Formats: sequence, C-alpha cells, structure tokens
Amino acid sequence: MEDLEDSKYMNHAIVLAKKGEGWVSPNPMVGAVIVKKGKIIGEGYHKACGKPHAERNALASCVESAKGATLYVTLEPCCHYGRTPPCTDAIIRSGISKVIIGSGDPNPKVCGKGVSILRKAGITVKEGVLKKECDEMNTIFFHYIVTGTPYLAMKYAMTADGKIATVTGASQWITGETAREHVHRLRHKYSAIMVGIGTVLHDDPLLNCRLKNGKNPIRIICDSYLHIPVNSRICQTAGEIPTIVATTMTNSVKVSRLKALGVKILTLPNKNGKVDLPILMQKLGEFCVDSILLEGGGVLNYSALNDGLVQEMYVYIAPKIFGGKEAKTPVEGKGVLLPKECFQFAAPEISVLGDDLLLRFKKI
Amino acid sequence: MEDLEDSKYMNHAIVLAKKGEGWVSPNPMVGAVIVKKGKIIGEGYHKACGKPHAERNALASCVESAKGATLYVTLEPCCHYGRTPPCTDAIIRSGISKVIIGSGDPNPKVCGKGVSILRKAGITVKEGVLKKECDEMNTIFFHYIVTGTPYLAMKYAMTADGKIATVTGASQWITGETAREHVHRLRHKYSAIMVGIGTVLHDDPLLNCRLKNGKNPIRIICDSYLHIPVNSRICQTAGEIPTIVATTMTNSVKVSRLKALGVKILTLPNKNGKVDLPILMQKLGEFCVDSILLEGGGVLNYSALNDGLVQEMYVYIAPKIFGGKEAKTPVEGKGVLLPKECFQFAAPEISVLGDDLLLRFKKI
Repeated sequence: MEDLEDSKYMNHAIVLAKKGEGWVSPNPMVGAVIVKKGKIIGEGYHKACGKPHAERNALASCVESAKGATLYVTLEPCCHYGRTPPCTDAIIRSGISKVIIGSGDPNPKVCGKGVSILRKAGITVKEGVLKKECDEMNTIFFHYIVTGTPYLAMKYAMTADGKIATVTGASQWITGETAREHVHRLRHKYSAIMVGIGTVLHDDPLLNCRLKNGKNPIRIICDSYLHIPVNSRICQTAGEIPTIVATTMTNSVKVSRLKALGVKILTLPNKNGKVDLPILMQKLGEFCVDSILLEGGGVLNYSALNDGLVQEMYVYIAPKIFGGKEAKTPVEGKGVLLPKECFQFAAPEISVLGDDLLLRFKKI
Repeated sequence: MEDLEDSKYMNHAIVLAKKGEGWVSPNPMVGAVIVKKGKIIGEGYHKACGKPHAERNALASCVESAKGATLYVTLEPCCHYGRTPPCTDAIIRSGISKVIIGSGDPNPKVCGKGVSILRKAGITVKEGVLKKECDEMNTIFFHYIVTGTPYLAMKYAMTADGKIATVTGASQWITGETAREHVHRLRHKYSAIMVGIGTVLHDDPLLNCRLKNGKNPIRIICDSYLHIPVNSRICQTAGEIPTIVATTMTNSVKVSRLKALGVKILTLPNKNGKVDLPILMQKLGEFCVDSILLEGGGVLNYSALNDGLVQEMYVYIAPKIFGGKEAKTPVEGKGVLLPKECFQFAAPEISVLGDDLLLRFKKI
C-alpha cells in the first residue's frame, strides 16, 4: 500500500520535474512533492539553471507547516554550496521527518552525502523509488556529470530506402508535420544543435526552435576551413542566438568579421583534415554544453560515430521511397568494412508520428 | 450475442484457412466450420491447389448429419466447375440451412452468384462477417484474380542508416536469426522469388525455403544479358526447384545448356537495356504465378517501383550502422528528382523480431 502511495507521489514529482526540460541544463531536472497526512501540502521543481532547487520551491509553496511531513524528490538532495545553498539544510530546518528519493546523485560532490546528512539529522530516508524513470529523465545530466562532455544524440529523417535527400539534393520534406514538430521539441530539449558546414551552405538554415515557448539551442557549426558565409542567416542572427563555429583555421580577417557579428570561434586541432571532434566535445563540456543534437550530413555523422561520440540516435522514417544511387544517405564517410565491425545499438523504442515512425536507438 | 458467436466461428475458420498458406496458390486460402446446436460438427480447409475446397472437406469431416446446421466459410462458395465441381451443389445437398460468409469472391465467374444460388435453394445467407480479416488473408488472390498479374512484394534488410551491405559488399548478416527465419516464412508464402543477376553472381544463392515443411518458391532471375553461370547453384538445382531466367537474349548455345539443366528461359522485349518487367509480370501471371517476393538489389528494386509493380514492401531494420558513401542501399537506379515525386506508401505495420524491426508498407 505504502509502495503504491510512494509511486503515485514520485510520479507526480517526475511530471513536475519535466517542466524544466530544456531550461535547467546543465543541471538535472528535479521535481519535489511534500505530503502530510495523505495530502499534498507543497510542490515544486527546478525551473532553470541558477534558479532555486526543486526542494526549496516545494518548501516555499507549502500551505501549512512541513513539520512531520514526507518529501518526495526525484534526485538525491544536494549538500554542497553551488549557485544556491545546500538543500539538505533547508529540509532539516523545515522539520520534514521522511524523505523519499528517486535517483541517487552521480555528482561526486554529492553522491550519497545528501542522504547521510539527512539520516544523521534523524530523518528517515528511502531511496530508489521509481529509480528507473527518474534516472531515464536525466540521462543527459548523468552522462555530463560523469564524463564532463556533452551527451550527443544524432538525428536524421530518412525515407524507407535510407535517403535523406533525392539525387538533386532536395529534402523538403521527407517527414510530415507531426514528425517535424517533434524535432523542434528535441531542439528545445538539447542545449546545442550541431551541423556541418555543408548544411549551412546548402540550406542556409536558422537551426532555431520554432515551438511556442521553446528555447533555441546553441548553434555549433563544424567548419574546418571557415567557409561559413558572413551573410548566412546563422551569422546574421548570431547576436540573438549563441553561435559557435568550430574550425581549424586562424584566418584573422574572417575571424574578426564573424566575431563582430557575435559568433564565437573555437580554433581546434586538425584531425585528418577535419576539426578534431573529441577535443571539440571537451571544449564544449567546459563551456557547460551538456547535450548536443547532431543534425549532420553523412560525413559528419560518420565522424561522430567513428570517434565513439554518439550516445543515441533519433531516426525518423517516412513511408516513401526516393531511390537513386547518388542520393545522400544518413551516414556516409568511409564506412565499416565488415558487418561485424558495425556501430551497434540496442533494439529501438518506437513511436508513431502521423504516417512516420521515430526509432530511438541507444548505445549498447 | 449471435454476432459474437459468428465472429468466434469465423475466426476459427480463418485459423484453419491459413494452414493452406503457401500451398494453395494460385487459389485463395479458405477455411470452413460447420456448427449445429452450438457445437462444431465438422471443419476443413483448402489444403492445396487441385485438392478439394474447404466446404467439401468440412462436410466430409462431419461427425453427424449437417442437416439444419450452419456453415461458416471465409470466402463465398464457388458455383462453377473448375478442377472441382461447384461447392454450392454440395452445400445444398447436405441440408445445411444457414451459410455465413466472410469475403465475397472477386472472381468475375463467381462474384455474388454463389450467394444467390444458395438463397434460391432456401438457405439463409449472411455476408461480410469478419470481412476485413478474411479479405486481408487473401490480398494476393484478390490482386491476382483481378489483374491477372502476380502480387509483387519487395523485401530487403537494411541497417538503421539504410545500407544493405558494407562498402566491401559484405552483407552477412545484417539482421538477426529471428528476422532471417521470418524471411523464409515469406519464401514459403509467396509462389515465386525474384532476384537480379547481380545477386546470383555476387552471392551464388539457392533462394530456397529453409523452413521445416516449407515450400520452395519458383526462382525467377532477371538476367537481361544471360550472364547466369551454368555452374551456379541455382542452375545446378533447377531440376529440383522450378527456375525461370528472364532475359532479352536468344543465344542458342547458352539457352540450350540452361534448358538441359531444367531452367525455363523466358525471352522478353528489351526496355532501356533491361528485361521489360511489366511484360514479364503478364507472362508470369499466365503461368499461374500469383505472387512474387522481390529480393532484388537496388537497380532491380528501382525498376519494379518505377514500373508501378510493387504492391507492398517488407523492410527489415537492424539496430546498427554501416556508414559508407559507397555502401549499397536498397533502392538505387536513377531515383526521383523531387520529394513530391517519391513512391508513396501507407504508414507501416510494425513487428518486433528480436532486436530487429519489420516494417510492412502497403501501396496507398
């Protein structure tokens, strides 16, 4: 009976937490619910990076004293000073007598310490309620906190015969509206979007998020030889939407023109004639980029796979055939020589989006 | 209540009918159940082309007199002399008082006549019970009886990035065992399998059905310039498994060597340097080939699509990536120029086969 109650309130905390999606990074999404005598007396979630944590928002919202109440929180409460003071202090001060936790905090600064501080203060702590769901919600955070590099998800839309454009290069549109809107939800969710220079030259895209109340991702262009046109829509809007050009060049005239428009230039080592992607990932991690949606062409996609950077793939499939020996496919480059050398993923999660499918493949 | 009973018995008749899959072509699968006072007193199905119809098998199996009983049959009973005498006669003679039918017979020789003969004989007839399910079971038959040409289904297995082989041409294996076994169920179901000469030269396949108690499909090789090696496994087994080579050539020496091995040669007009596929379909229809599983390479697949011959696609997708600009894709050829000119299919039916997916796309 107690377990059912626990799941119910934790589930509610998860729903609250997800409201922070896209806004909280590089922090985790966290939700909290305070329950007293079978009634919710307060609830809250982490709304955005730099804003108060879920536990504090929940405590602040209480309609009566939290003394003797139970706190449900999707992630182990923090016990260190970051941008905000430790949540464990606030919980202890509130008189809460029981804390139910979803995920443990993988952050080495916290890891288990939050729980032991609460227990020392005489609070009963239960861990691991809906752990799987809570963990899954923060896959990005867990990856970032452990590796220090962004969680990279590759995204492409293809026909049933594996084409991302016709032989003429035309690609608008492959999937229907529902699937295309879903992509914008991903752009909201991920901190950054990454494309190759080919996409910029071919489509002159904005790479923004067109959802109402959506968040634009940071735009990252892999542009080894600094070919990006100063008059491209991306450069022209770099004052409004953060834009990073990753290059191997140091051409000072072009660099200063781009900088004047607000473009951030990252000069990186050259690896086989291209920007060194693993080093780019490290740099981006240092700039607090916790997640990247890679909407690359076949060459960049292959490099990212080959460098072992792809954690997940979002593959949209339309019920159509383009054909064409020369039509572009989602992953090109050199390719593997033998089937057993393939990049292997787990069996996909399937979603139906109108007439199209979305397959989510995660790294094994 | 009566409707639930009807569905129950019709469903049982469908299960019986499907036992004939692969064996009955070019006839339809048909199942029949005879019910008296709430008990099944007889049942049967059409077992193979040339063998008695389902109704007769059901009548013959009756454990008591069928007088006053109800016959459930998945397809309108025949009323014409084919290889067997009309079933309507046998039904009337048996004293059955009610006939419940799934699909109407699309054969112009029958179409509604069976029903009216039964009614004239004083039998109550109800049509359209589980019609959708009954129709779906005989998609191939309905297509063949109406068009006189085989129902053609394209089949391919690809990686999540749309490759049917690595850059070196290696393709064993893309999918796992469950998916590969499923292909053999298709080979059992379809009357014929069709490939291009490229597949024979590259893989030297047998193209048989490896299911226990499975039926080998007729093998059709599109070989415009008669390149098939006399010592290929296909030619060497042509005495055991029917084999047709479709070509534009009349090279008499090679032709007679192939014929001596049991290969049937179909000489056809040349269309843009290839065998004229629509004419091939007509010829095959005349030879009673009601269905073809096309396991072609990209060029043949594109031709079949371009000629409007593909009714359905079975697309197996493995959770892996090969990459490679030069790796082969399932549909190649010229390709369409613009997305709106694509070959459009309906939203797919999805099956999970181990770690792989099977997407079934039907023509809109």
